[in-house]
Formats: sequence, C-alpha cells, structure tokens
Amino acid sequence: MTEQNVKFLEDAFPSWRKLTQGQQDSLKQSAVEQKYAKGVSLHHGSEDCSGLFVVKSGQLRVYTISESGKEITLYRLFDRDICLFSASCMLKNISFDVHVEAEKDTLALLIPTPVYEGLMKNSLVLTDFTNQLLASRFSDVMWVMEQVLFTSFDRRLAAFLLEQSSIESSDTLHITHEEISRHMGSAREVVTRMLKYFQAEGMVTLSRGGIAIVDESKLKKLI
Amino acid sequence: MTEQNVKFLEDAFPSWRKLTQGQQDSLKQSAVEQKYAKGVSLHHGSEDCSGLFVVKSGQLRVYTISESGKEITLYRLFDRDICLFSASCMLKNISFDVHVEAEKDTLALLIPTPVYEGLMKNSLVLTDFTNQLLASRFSDVMWVMEQVLFTSFDRRLAAFLLEQSSIESSDTLHITHEEISRHMGSAREVVTRMLKYFQAEGMVTLSRGGIAIVDESKLKKLI
Repeated sequence: MTEQNVKFLEDAFPSWRKLTQGQQDSLKQSAVEQKYAKGVSLHHGSEDCSGLFVVKSGQLRVYTISESGKEITLYRLFDRDICLFSASCMLKNISFDVHVEAEKDTLALLIPTPVYEGLMKNSLVLTDFTNQLLASRFSDVMWVMEQVLFTSFDRRLAAFLLEQSSIESSDTLHITHEEISRHMGSAREVVTRMLKYFQAEGMVTLSRGGIAIVDESKLKKLI
Repeated sequence: MTEQNVKFLEDAFPSWRKLTQGQQDSLKQSAVEQKYAKGVSLHHGSEDCSGLFVVKSGQLRVYTISESGKEITLYRLFDRDICLFSASCMLKNISFDVHVEAEKDTLALLIPTPVYEGLMKNSLVLTDFTNQLLASRFSDVMWVMEQVLFTSFDRRLAAFLLEQSSIESSDTLHITHEEISRHMGSAREVVTRMLKYFQAEGMVTLSRGGIAIVDESKLKKLI
C-alpha cells in the first residue's frame, strides 16, 4: 500500500493509534484500492459481504428496495466515510438488506470482511468503533424515517433539492424526476406534481436537462 | 439481589459466562428491581439516561414522537429483552430520541448507566453484546420503515391486529382507534375508515369496547 493510503487509513479510523502495531499492519496489508465508475453497484443486500469500504473520493448511495422495486435512499457516504453494511454478514442480528451504489466515480479502500472480523474478535477498540459506526448509521436511518412519517412531502422535497444543491455545489441539478422519486421512496408522479407547484411558485425552473433552483431562500422558508 | 434475580440476569445476558467474576459481581450488585404500572413512562428521549432495563415480566413499548405529537411504535420488549436506549447517552453517535412506556404492569431489573458504561470500557464481551443489541434494534426499526414505505395501509393494519391478538392471546382486542393510530404513525380517521371496511368485509366486528377478530384467515390472506 502507498504511504498516502496508509496516512489516509490513519485519518479515517479515529482510534487508529489505539490499535496494536500488529492490528495496524493487518489493516494496512489487507486493504486494497478499488475504483468504481458512476452507477456501479458495490453491494447487493445479503448476497455480498466483500468488506468495509473506506471512501477516498467520490460518493456512495446506500438504499433499500422493496419487492416491487420501490427504493429509498438511507444515507450517502463521502470522503473518509466507512461503509459498514457491505460487511454486514459479520454483524450478528442484522436482518435487513441494503444496497450500495457509486453515485459518482469513486475510489475506495476495501478491507476484506475476514480480516476486519478477525481483528474485532480481539480488539475492544475496533469493536467499540464498529459500535459507533452502527449507531451513526442508525441515527441516519431514524432521521429518514422521521422525515417520511412526520414531514409533509413539500418540505421533504425542498430539503432534498437544497441538500442535492449543496452536494453538487451548484444551483442546477442534473437529476430526473424518476431519480428523485427513488431517493425519496415516492411515486414519480407525486414528485413531478410538486416540482410543477414549486415552479409555479417561482422557486425552481424545470427543463429537460434538470432543475434549476432560482429562489433558494423561498425553498428554505418552506423547511 | 435475590438468587432468582441472579439466575435471571445470567439467562438474559447470553455471554454472562464469558464475563469475569468481578464484572458479574458489578452487574449483580448494581441491578435494582423496579416496578412500573401500565401507562407509566420509563424514558423520555434524551432527558433521561437511567440505565438498561432488563424486562422480567410485562411489556414495554418503544416509540418515537414528532414535534406535533404524532407517534409510531418502533418495537416492543418482552421477558428477558433488554432496553438499551434508556441508556443511550453512553452510546456515541446516537442523535435521535426514543420514548419508552410500560404497556402492561412491568417488572424489570435496572442496571445503572455508569456501571454498564464502566464495564464496557474494559470488556470486549460486553461491548460486542451491546453491538448485537444495537444491530437487533436497528433491524426492528428497518422493518417498521419498510412497512411504512412499501406496504399498503390495509396490509399493515391487518398485520397489526394479528400481532396484537397474538401478544394478547385473545381474539378480542381492548384497544381504541386512537391507540392504533399512535402505534402505526397514521391519522385516527384513516384507522377508523379501514376498520369499518374490515368490518364490512366480515373480518372484524367493532364495538365500543374494542375490536373482535372474526375471520383470522381472511386477515392473514390480506398480508
């Protein structure tokens, strides 16, 4: 592994310095750099258990999907975030499936499941860190659930557009209504209807290529 | 602590035998038996952090609540289940609040947060067990979320009535439409409308006192 990647791992694991030399070496020697093109799937539910992805650059989307193909985005992972559920087979009592895809071209270090699982068995530090990761994702999912249950659709959509604009650092979003509906777990028609309402209210303009935010403060006020 | 309670703790913690004598003694000496009458609140979001409740008998309901007072039941805890979120302040990265109330008269052993937290710091066994508890609750919540997102209301209500009937070991449920709406995170009117439809279809009969399931197989078929 390159020196730059070693430095990166040290940063990504906040408790790196508390690991023994042997444990640090295991992680360093087993981690493999992987490239994923935009749109590629990194993890399909319980079929896969390749390991933990530590994101170096790019963007991952973690989502769940119903039998009928309806999706909802649970959270996104950015630089230095660690994807735990791609190694969920090592976690006892996880009885749900998530899917992970690259939303942008992504570079990540993959730590194979058997290596991490083996280290956890003898490392209180790593088990405690895994606990924190799990708690963090649990909090993300609770946030989504509270949004779905307790927040009206216009507020959720406004929040989604603003979040997307912040991620893209742009007021123009190249995203289809279909894609938005998959993020939000809603029907495409409902998304289109609300976007048209936002347009009529002068908050966005819709075009074939995407959605332009024209009155950010009005969208913010909605939230 | 009585010998019976010690025996009970040993059963409730699957990895009890892997704890050191000192750790076992700490848990035994600190656990306090508590009684909660039906309807009493054991935990109000982040205000409280009394400790882990180990249910001896009765039934706890864990739920979340919106600013406007809308509720949804996340899961229930029965005999030998352990309530972790009543000690959530010791978990890093938990940024949501849950509430816990006794749904029946409940007897529980309370392990104070500082004791459990102190033991976790030096016990891989206990940290790993906490991880499993967290994963288990995470799975419960994902199940609820998938139900809310992907399952039509008639199927969810049918599943709720059958689950309630199984918990109560009775075909007659003493529960109001208002209470059902709080469990399901839905409006009371929507519950009443669907129950009337179920009655028209001969699946239940509604009375002032509650709901009687008259055609269980038809309800099951709906799911």
